[in-house]
Amino acid sequence: MRIIVALLVLCTAATSAHADEGMWTYNGFPKAKLEKKYGVKVDDAWLDHVRLSSARLAQGCSASFVSPNGLVLTNHHCVESCLQDLSSAEKDYLATGFQAKTAADEVKCPVMEVNQLVEITDVTARLKKATAGLTGQKFNDAQKAESGRIETECQTSPALRCNVVTLYHGGRYDLYRYRRYQDVRMVFAPEFAIAFFGGDPDNFMFPRYDLDMSLVRVYDDGKPLQSKDFLAWNPAGPSEGDVVFVSGHPGGTDRQLTMAELQYQRDVQLPATLMRLSELRGALTEFQNRGPEQKRVSNGLLFMVENSLKALKGEREALVDRDFFAQKAAAEAAFRKKLGGRKDGRAALQAYASIQQAEDLKRNVRDEVNYVMGPAGFMTSYFQFARTLVRGADERQRKNEDRLEEYQEAKLPAVTQSLFSSAPIDDEFEIFKLTWSLTKLRETLGPDHAFTKRVLGQESPAEVAKRLVSGTKLRDLALRKQLWEGGKAAVDASQDPMIAFARAVDPDARAVRKMYEDEIESVVKKGSETIAQARLALEGTSGYPDATFTLRLSYGTVKGWTEGKKVVPAFTTLEGAFARDTGRAPFALPKSWLDAKPRLDLQTRFDFAATTDIIGGNSGSPVVARDGRIVGLVFDGNIWSLGGKYGFDEKLNRTVAVDTAAITEALDKIYGATRILEELIPRRKPHAAN
Amino acid sequence: MRIIVALLVLCTAATSAHADEGMWTYNGFPKAKLEKKYGVKVDDAWLDHVRLSSARLAQGCSASFVSPNGLVLTNHHCVESCLQDLSSAEKDYLATGFQAKTAADEVKCPVMEVNQLVEITDVTARLKKATAGLTGQKFNDAQKAESGRIETECQTSPALRCNVVTLYHGGRYDLYRYRRYQDVRMVFAPEFAIAFFGGDPDNFMFPRYDLDMSLVRVYDDGKPLQSKDFLAWNPAGPSEGDVVFVSGHPGGTDRQLTMAELQYQRDVQLPATLMRLSELRGALTEFQNRGPEQKRVSNGLLFMVENSLKALKGEREALVDRDFFAQKAAAEAAFRKKLGGRKDGRAALQAYASIQQAEDLKRNVRDEVNYVMGPAGFMTSYFQFARTLVRGADERQRKNEDRLEEYQEAKLPAVTQSLFSSAPIDDEFEIFKLTWSLTKLRETLGPDHAFTKRVLGQESPAEVAKRLVSGTKLRDLALRKQLWEGGKAAVDASQDPMIAFARAVDPDARAVRKMYEDEIESVVKKGSETIAQARLALEGTSGYPDATFTLRLSYGTVKGWTEGKKVVPAFTTLEGAFARDTGRAPFALPKSWLDAKPRLDLQTRFDFAATTDIIGGNSGSPVVARDGRIVGLVFDGNIWSLGGKYGFDEKLNRTVAVDTAAITEALDKIYGATRILEELIPRRKPHAAN
Repeated sequence: MRIIVALLVLCTAATSAHADEGMWTYNGFPKAKLEKKYGVKVDDAWLDHVRLSSARLAQGCSASFVSPNGLVLTNHHCVESCLQDLSSAEKDYLATGFQAKTAADEVKCPVMEVNQLVEITDVTARLKKATAGLTGQKFNDAQKAESGRIETECQTSPALRCNVVTLYHGGRYDLYRYRRYQDVRMVFAPEFAIAFFGGDPDNFMFPRYDLDMSLVRVYDDGKPLQSKDFLAWNPAGPSEGDVVFVSGHPGGTDRQLTMAELQYQRDVQLPATLMRLSELRGALTEFQNRGPEQKRVSNGLLFMVENSLKALKGEREALVDRDFFAQKAAAEAAFRKKLGGRKDGRAALQAYASIQQAEDLKRNVRDEVNYVMGPAGFMTSYFQFARTLVRGADERQRKNEDRLEEYQEAKLPAVTQSLFSSAPIDDEFEIFKLTWSLTKLRETLGPDHAFTKRVLGQESPAEVAKRLVSGTKLRDLALRKQLWEGGKAAVDASQDPMIAFARAVDPDARAVRKMYEDEIESVVKKGSETIAQARLALEGTSGYPDATFTLRLSYGTVKGWTEGKKVVPAFTTLEGAFARDTGRAPFALPKSWLDAKPRLDLQTRFDFAATTDIIGGNSGSPVVARDGRIVGLVFDGNIWSLGGKYGFDEKLNRTVAVDTAAITEALDKIYGATRILEELIPRRKPHAAN
Repeated sequence: MRIIVALLVLCTAATSAHADEGMWTYNGFPKAKLEKKYGVKVDDAWLDHVRLSSARLAQGCSASFVSPNGLVLTNHHCVESCLQDLSSAEKDYLATGFQAKTAADEVKCPVMEVNQLVEITDVTARLKKATAGLTGQKFNDAQKAESGRIETECQTSPALRCNVVTLYHGGRYDLYRYRRYQDVRMVFAPEFAIAFFGGDPDNFMFPRYDLDMSLVRVYDDGKPLQSKDFLAWNPAGPSEGDVVFVSGHPGGTDRQLTMAELQYQRDVQLPATLMRLSELRGALTEFQNRGPEQKRVSNGLLFMVENSLKALKGEREALVDRDFFAQKAAAEAAFRKKLGGRKDGRAALQAYASIQQAEDLKRNVRDEVNYVMGPAGFMTSYFQFARTLVRGADERQRKNEDRLEEYQEAKLPAVTQSLFSSAPIDDEFEIFKLTWSLTKLRETLGPDHAFTKRVLGQESPAEVAKRLVSGTKLRDLALRKQLWEGGKAAVDASQDPMIAFARAVDPDARAVRKMYEDEIESVVKKGSETIAQARLALEGTSGYPDATFTLRLSYGTVKGWTEGKKVVPAFTTLEGAFARDTGRAPFALPKSWLDAKPRLDLQTRFDFAATTDIIGGNSGSPVVARDGRIVGLVFDGNIWSLGGKYGFDEKLNRTVAVDTAAITEALDKIYGATRILEELIPRRKPHAAN
């Protein structure tokens, strides 16, 4: 499952001439290269149409408009938290699925934001000018201030979202202007059991049998959004060998990192994160045994944790592959040698050294960065609310460019959407999470660390967690609104224990953050920019930038692969799902499927593999045919795609998508979703369904 | 806590001239070096006496005889499983501690074996002759067969234990002959709360405040063992700067491994183990919330898991230290260069290549090695019983030298002690462990692996676990005895579901084992032997061999250390424990201590640090003064000692021990253990106690 938590890999940019590698920006799409390789022409109108038909879910997924009435197709796992927010002990939409039989039945998701990319503007010159000659803290401050100014100028209404985007690690800066929609309503979702059939064991695997899809609708001014930009539905799906495109938002790749950064990830960051997630997984799995309601409220987090674990394990595998790592090292050494031969290469060589120093410093301070600066020790929604209120009150008193980035004016709509979420909160689960994370804080910083003492005093982690969660009133949405609107005076006057707690830990958190930004982040940013510019000067811009959760277009073909003697075909069928059913989760088909089996065309293609280059964040991306129609829905990559974080291996790396043929067949014969089908396929003949 | 699960390190053998580095064999102790550095002379009589006063706990700890009547001092954490075995829902000795007020109150530990090293014989020539000219499977088979013959010839009675020991990775082979005692009875243990005060947060830390001690008694023929070899008790403990010796059984170091092996550990083995243990920790921690009895039965495993986690994390830290790893690489490169310059160096260079190949193969088959060959998927005592019965029946039909190593005659007393253990088993906990581990098996091998299908069929891991644990009758000790004694006919006829399960998975397990032994283990063994011999030829035997859980003697001084500006003193006091008490576990002193506080000399030294070179397995080792008296009890190392697995850093690596002064004070004024004190200190004046 390719949510934003990202994705072996044998070749890098140098070898991509004949590969389908590349997550291309829309304003840098290699039309000529595509035509040369596949004989397929796309023009600017085609690109504009696909771009405007694409959507981003701000919480970390991709999507597409599939009707003129604001119907948006994405993955089930991208709307899972909405389904959980809408569910209760009495009504569990993850178990039963969701279908709005009429327009009036479409229900708003508490926290969901859809973005449509309407404009891209090059702002490199402005950014460069603002930071010219600066380093360290001054570089960082100037860059943030200028980005904030650009974004605020751009964002002339809350209905817009403007982001200054760093490409090529600072080689280029673009302003991305999105149309922002926060009224997003649930239309259809199948049962979790078929959306995630095979569960964690089958995740990132292929062959695969998942209906990982859902439909939501974007409302504008209380009415379904009317739009001419949407992808027409092809109910037949693609054929093997078809050229296809994936338009979506790959969350992040690290294909252009320095060796110092890769070594840090391999030796420090990834192992530590994997251990933390593993432990949390163990605790959550057993928490679920407390009872069915505990299981229900913790399913979403467990899914996130398991999905991240599997993805990050795959990424680590790529970095500990000796040949791959040696190749990365050789490529950097070769580039540095080139730099060494040029007068203007000195700055870039110096940048490598600075980045190495910053990475070494990061090793030493990473525990503080995670547990004092970051909220790794405070895993509860209540703390998130409290920190937002405390910081929001402080920050909003300042000039826009002096604020912490996430409280600049352009960012506030996203902040308040989370703060004012009506999603239910389960106190037992909050206590569980906070106890566990406070215990990790004590373990990581040590019981004698001043911050541990400030947080725990003489109490145990469980006592602190219970006291704070039981004592806080922040469950009350009206109170949160009142505190936000009351600003600093209101927040300062609050006696709420969680607010008091967030206030007490904030000075330490801010101090570490300042150190981190001034001594590490700014050094890496500035250094990366210097190297990127040297690379652009030496090698030009024929490559694509590392992914940064901005809209990209990949191309490739529908194709299986070969592993040793094993040939993996491109398609699975509905029949395969029935063959895999054991009746036990996660291999248990839902009753609706078992009941519908006699009516189904079991040869209908279910999921398929393609050579398109994607990564976490591409979840929900449409697979588009050359005629501009949608033929599939990306929901995963194969196990080999996980190394795609660091490089693309054309032989093995595959996108995994749901076939529109399977979606059509299921909506029709399993779910009887006539209203939806008629919207997707306007001239469709009605079919006898259940 | 330094049980056998092992333990930055800046210098290796080359720089040890002035360091206290070295885990010396008793027949290779550097008397001259010691005298040169510290002016301390030890003679052979002194060495023999300390050796015979030392003891090994076969389950993975060290110990020492401290009275003429078989009284043995070791750590609390070395007898924790015995205390747990003796406890019940009604009587929890971990909570209350244990004290046999009279000889009759001393209770036998179900599974505990004490070994005393009585003789060392060089058998290198015999082993070399048996394997001359052989490689691969033939090398392995011949070596095992010859070792088995030597051990069986040596072991003329079940009261002996004979082990052929590999030193210098095959540079030398010694036969170690031990006196074996299996009747070991609990005499004294304090409360877990003070034995492990500070819990996991303080583990591997210093300053430290733990009374991690216990006393057991060795019985021979039903009566306390009479022996003249024991360490006289020094109730005053050591002084700062004193030269001290640690006599114990370091479990294993990897200071002489090749880079290929180190890379495998760094990139594959350690991260995977850490993830598994992290997840198990999370699950166990939350299992404990099911209730007090669930907490009690799972405490032992949780301790083991957390202890291993912290130790292995420290080991990994050493390997990802860039300078340290680069130094290891440089040392190997230098040695290989030396080999390259000599005619007789070719075989050793070829051995490096073979080991690299074997390590690469290991990466590819490690999941099968752990989950098909090994019991990683079958975490329950019942499966251990069943596998022992099934394999024992098969193996005992064969000639001794054709058997799997662990079923050779010389090994059977250890096998039957575990099989016939009367330790209680909690079925809820067994189901929990088996469910969890079967889930890991499915995850690791994948649901489509033939072995996964054989194990699970159409059932879920939880269903299989419940069916097997509920259905087996192997809880019944008499049945286990009957099946063992009945041999193959009895085992084959058994309908017990766990026996049937163990039978069903055995052919696959044996097949992977054969592949592993023939293609990996034998290659690494043979290659290591070749390299070791080349090293001995080039550099002589001035160094010590890597630790292998055989008796070693380290020397050093009682000494703190300095970290940057922080000076860590050598001693802590009882007063410090009271200052650290928060009243909340794991920082809660037991009631006995709080009550006794007014009577205590709070300036009594509690724990201390020394520069002696130790590692996991040294837990329970005596700290011996030059006069041969015991002054301390090793129970831990500081955080810097964990990298000792790969090299010794004299500046930072410290042993952590309980001072005999604290033990004396506590036995006297807290526990009123007059009977024990009179045995430890024969001419002692009685003291008014509670």
